[in-house]
Amino acid sequence: MSTFPFQNIAIIGLGLMGGSLALALRARGYTGILQGAGGSASDLGLARSAQGHGRAVFDEICEDPADLPLGAVDLLILAVPPAALSVYFALAAENLPAAAVVTDLASVKANNVAKGEALLGARYQSSHPLIGAEQHGFAAAHADLYRDYRCILCQGSVTDAEVDERLTGFWTALGAEVLHLDVATHDTALAATSHLPHLLAFAYLELLGAEPELALLAGGGLRDFSRIAASDPRLWADILWQNRAAVRARLARLQEGLGRLDGVLAGEDPAPLLASLSRGQQTRSRFRFPSS
Amino acid sequence: MSTFPFQNIAIIGLGLMGGSLALALRARGYTGILQGAGGSASDLGLARSAQGHGRAVFDEICEDPADLPLGAVDLLILAVPPAALSVYFALAAENLPAAAVVTDLASVKANNVAKGEALLGARYQSSHPLIGAEQHGFAAAHADLYRDYRCILCQGSVTDAEVDERLTGFWTALGAEVLHLDVATHDTALAATSHLPHLLAFAYLELLGAEPELALLAGGGLRDFSRIAASDPRLWADILWQNRAAVRARLARLQEGLGRLDGVLAGEDPAPLLASLSRGQQTRSRFRFPSS
Repeated sequence: MSTFPFQNIAIIGLGLMGGSLALALRARGYTGILQGAGGSASDLGLARSAQGHGRAVFDEICEDPADLPLGAVDLLILAVPPAALSVYFALAAENLPAAAVVTDLASVKANNVAKGEALLGARYQSSHPLIGAEQHGFAAAHADLYRDYRCILCQGSVTDAEVDERLTGFWTALGAEVLHLDVATHDTALAATSHLPHLLAFAYLELLGAEPELALLAGGGLRDFSRIAASDPRLWADILWQNRAAVRARLARLQEGLGRLDGVLAGEDPAPLLASLSRGQQTRSRFRFPSS
Repeated sequence: MSTFPFQNIAIIGLGLMGGSLALALRARGYTGILQGAGGSASDLGLARSAQGHGRAVFDEICEDPADLPLGAVDLLILAVPPAALSVYFALAAENLPAAAVVTDLASVKANNVAKGEALLGARYQSSHPLIGAEQHGFAAAHADLYRDYRCILCQGSVTDAEVDERLTGFWTALGAEVLHLDVATHDTALAATSHLPHLLAFAYLELLGAEPELALLAGGGLRDFSRIAASDPRLWADILWQNRAAVRARLARLQEGLGRLDGVLAGEDPAPLLASLSRGQQTRSRFRFPSS
């Protein structure tokens, strides 16, 4: 079993990401203290009864994160939507011991990292496990979500080498391959690899909404293409809005590319179409996606 | 076990679609004669050794479809790419008994149905099982591909009620829910539910090709969004080219929609963004996708 560089962990946000993280910790042999707080009544009930490795996954569950006894916590994980992070940075600054480390799992970084660093300094370092699912809540949580994935650790304006080393050790023990990116590079890259695809999937399905007869006429292609459009619209509106500059820049390039392809389709020669599709297929073959 | 209204079936094209169809026929209890032809050396070898229900799946395999003994066949299934259909329509017209039925599985209909009807008349009726996978070849074939799906039967300019009834029975026995569409409606609908999503997935990945560092920075979202961009570029260039009028019309509407969303992202009010994503999510929830 792996060794975790933290032994008293609290997770705020017991939805899919936080709940799965808790289950994965126990599945990978974490034997330290684990507290949890925050979530719907269903999330809290399921978290209370969750078992892993023959024991309760959580040592303590609080409904309200403000009631979490944080005095001995050495790692606080904020598994909440990006829009909700600020309030928990403040809670952490007021209640955590000085040596405790704080991280989050959010998909968009710039605003939040600036706020987190302002309140917590270098003991806050942002994480982004490249994991996703369109489901919500602890009911959908499972330890295998944290399997065969990469986790980005984000370098903001302040970084502490020891905090970075401990978080690297934590994610490695949780099965991740850890990468380091500065905040701006993270947000630009994720606009391309996650945020704009979400916008496209939602936008594509929105356009089909006026033609209900199409609902019977799709196969597995559209199902997978649009899986991410089953995600929480509030979460994704928040992510897209926070990262709108990078998303718009990438969207402009896509619109140009689509315009070019439309020109090909309007012409007489299908060869450039085949060349484009072939390049797309080849590029995809170089991506290292999570296996499930 | 189901009753199949044909008892002497030949499949031309022993790739993923044709191979899976053969396996599914045996899995669903088809006990009649089954011949196959056409495919790579690997496809042919795997088809020759394929077993189902304790017997060889195929009674006879020919390398060259022209060598298939078609004199007693009552259903010929053309499981070849759309660009290859014409030559087999001619083969069928020359060699099949007058009462035999011919169908194909292609994803685009207009040109091909016109050609098929010109050579075969009403004994040809086009099918489109809404099934897909990005893999190729008999090696990827499995009976479960034909599970929990819909199959469109296409009405061209000539339709024979008895042929239609027998093909409806055939697909129903193969587990499909059968729908009927005229050729133009099929191609317009499939441009929206399949062809343009393929173009988008290929085009999106093509745009990422200049940034190899992104290959480590994608999660399950882009993996699923772009799964269809792992498909055969030649097949899809052919489909998109054959249906380019409908694809371009749909693409124009998408580009308008994306332009509107870009305007929202450029503005001060995120509410219309959330409204769009919510409509996209709601529309998706009304789709009936195959379950796997």
